[in-house]
Amino acid sequence: MSGEKPEQIIGDETGLQRALSYVNHVFADRTETHLTMDDRHTNRHGTLHGGIFTMLLDSACGFAASRALSDDADQKVITLTLTVNYLAQPKSDHVYAVGKVSRAGGSVVYSNGEVFDDEGTLLATGSGVFKRVRG
Amino acid sequence: MSGEKPEQIIGDETGLQRALSYVNHVFADRTETHLTMDDRHTNRHGTLHGGIFTMLLDSACGFAASRALSDDADQKVITLTLTVNYLAQPKSDHVYAVGKVSRAGGSVVYSNGEVFDDEGTLLATGSGVFKRVRG
Amino acid sequence: MSGEKPEQIIGDETGLQRALSYVNHVFADRTETHLTMDDRHTNRHGTLHGGIFTMLLDSACGFAASRALSDDADQKVITLTLTVNYLAQPKSDHVYAVGKVSRAGGSVVYSNGEVFDDEGTLLATGSGVFKRVRG
Amino acid sequence: MSGEKPEQIIGDETGLQRALSYVNHVFADRTETHLTMDDRHTNRHGTLHGGIFTMLLDSACGFAASRALSDDADQKVITLTLTVNYLAQPKSDHVYAVGKVSRAGGSVVYSNGEVFDDEGTLLATGSGVFKRVRG
Repeated sequence: MSGEKPEQIIGDETGLQRALSYVNHVFADRTETHLTMDDRHTNRHGTLHGGIFTMLLDSACGFAASRALSDDADQKVITLTLTVNYLAQPKSDHVYAVGKVSRAGGSVVYSNGEVFDDEGTLLATGSGVFKRVRG
Repeated sequence: MSGEKPEQIIGDETGLQRALSYVNHVFADRTETHLTMDDRHTNRHGTLHGGIFTMLLDSACGFAASRALSDDADQKVITLTLTVNYLAQPKSDHVYAVGKVSRAGGSVVYSNGEVFDDEGTLLATGSGVFKRVRG
Repeated sequence: MSGEKPEQIIGDETGLQRALSYVNHVFADRTETHLTMDDRHTNRHGTLHGGIFTMLLDSACGFAASRALSDDADQKVITLTLTVNYLAQPKSDHVYAVGKVSRAGGSVVYSNGEVFDDEGTLLATGSGVFKRVRG
Repeated sequence: MSGEKPEQIIGDETGLQRALSYVNHVFADRTETHLTMDDRHTNRHGTLHGGIFTMLLDSACGFAASRALSDDADQKVITLTLTVNYLAQPKSDHVYAVGKVSRAGGSVVYSNGEVFDDEGTLLATGSGVFKRVRG
């Protein structure tokens, strides 16, 4: 997270975004997916639900893959696989995932992601493999 | 999915469940997490969001782990890691994940999960490692 | 592992096979990779090395993917990703991985694998995504 | 890989190390696992076997975890799970994995790893979760 201006801010594109209120900041070299926690995002222990970490990482890593394949991040990709490791719970309500591409081939793109809170604590790491959808 | 009666039906326990309307059916040997798709669950291609598949698998695998450690599935566990492979999109609105424990040790539990639609098509597979939280 | 006769037994094909002495039994619906443990396969605790479990699963899952794409299991595939969960150590010297395909698309194949000892104990589980290499 | 001197060089500790000739360089903040490719390390396409990438990552990530828990890297840990993404084949015979700890808790340690060739090309990425073995 920096003062740098995103190329695109995508916040109301899908039903899931509206249901959970997360926002994608697309940069040339990464995507950040931001979320401010409320009751919709918690598990039965009152902490951030594992599925939310994963959704943030899938979104950040997938948009980074789209952006690596197209200047407007409009290239359709599908997730082949995603792995998430859960390290810690956030100490701030605002959390964000940062997704970066480690390799973009002709049809397959690899991304890595990290989730942070506002104290800079690493909360989760993830990696995904995405496939370009042609046509 | 069968005519067998669940030990517990948990449908309104957390904020995330209310936001996304999924329901856990806890059995002695597995947990099923059921969801009927609507606009809240879709990605920008209008199909089931990758994060939803993962949330279903995390929930089914995690409850199966809790149930393996406690008769009332009330044992708190945290997800250490979760891997999801995305195979196909559903052909029905109703989808469900089935989570089963492959090994329950003293502190660590391993679960595997599968997501199906009503035609019985396998949509996603996953595996998770969970840790018992004491006290 | 059964009395069923494999379509192919592949035991001396690669340098790694000769260095570690594992053998692939290719069946129409699965591949089994067999290994009899000796000093070459152990970690610094004297038990089966994590890398050996993974090698067995990569081999079994990859050959199952090749076989799903070609009757002679000769179709070249590359591993995109592999996840392995380690459940237990073997109680017999002989161990084997069983790899099965969960979905074979035009270019991408998903396999799951399990490693067992001779007592039938599940030692490890894994999942892999493979890509067909054309030409 | 740098001119920095390792705390420990571990090259002949296990049967698997002798069978495959890889060497661990333990530093305070990471472990590097080095291998010079020969016929023992190849698959049936004559390129580096997927299982070797994984073995390098398991070794580098596991030693980094041990070192995070003990000054002499002698703390026993077991791998709970390991995920590997395969990006590219090496253009040099020498390859090495670098493993770093992202979080070390009381009983669970998370490591990430990357494999490189001598041109600095990223060949594979991985993440593992390790458990401290007491006593």
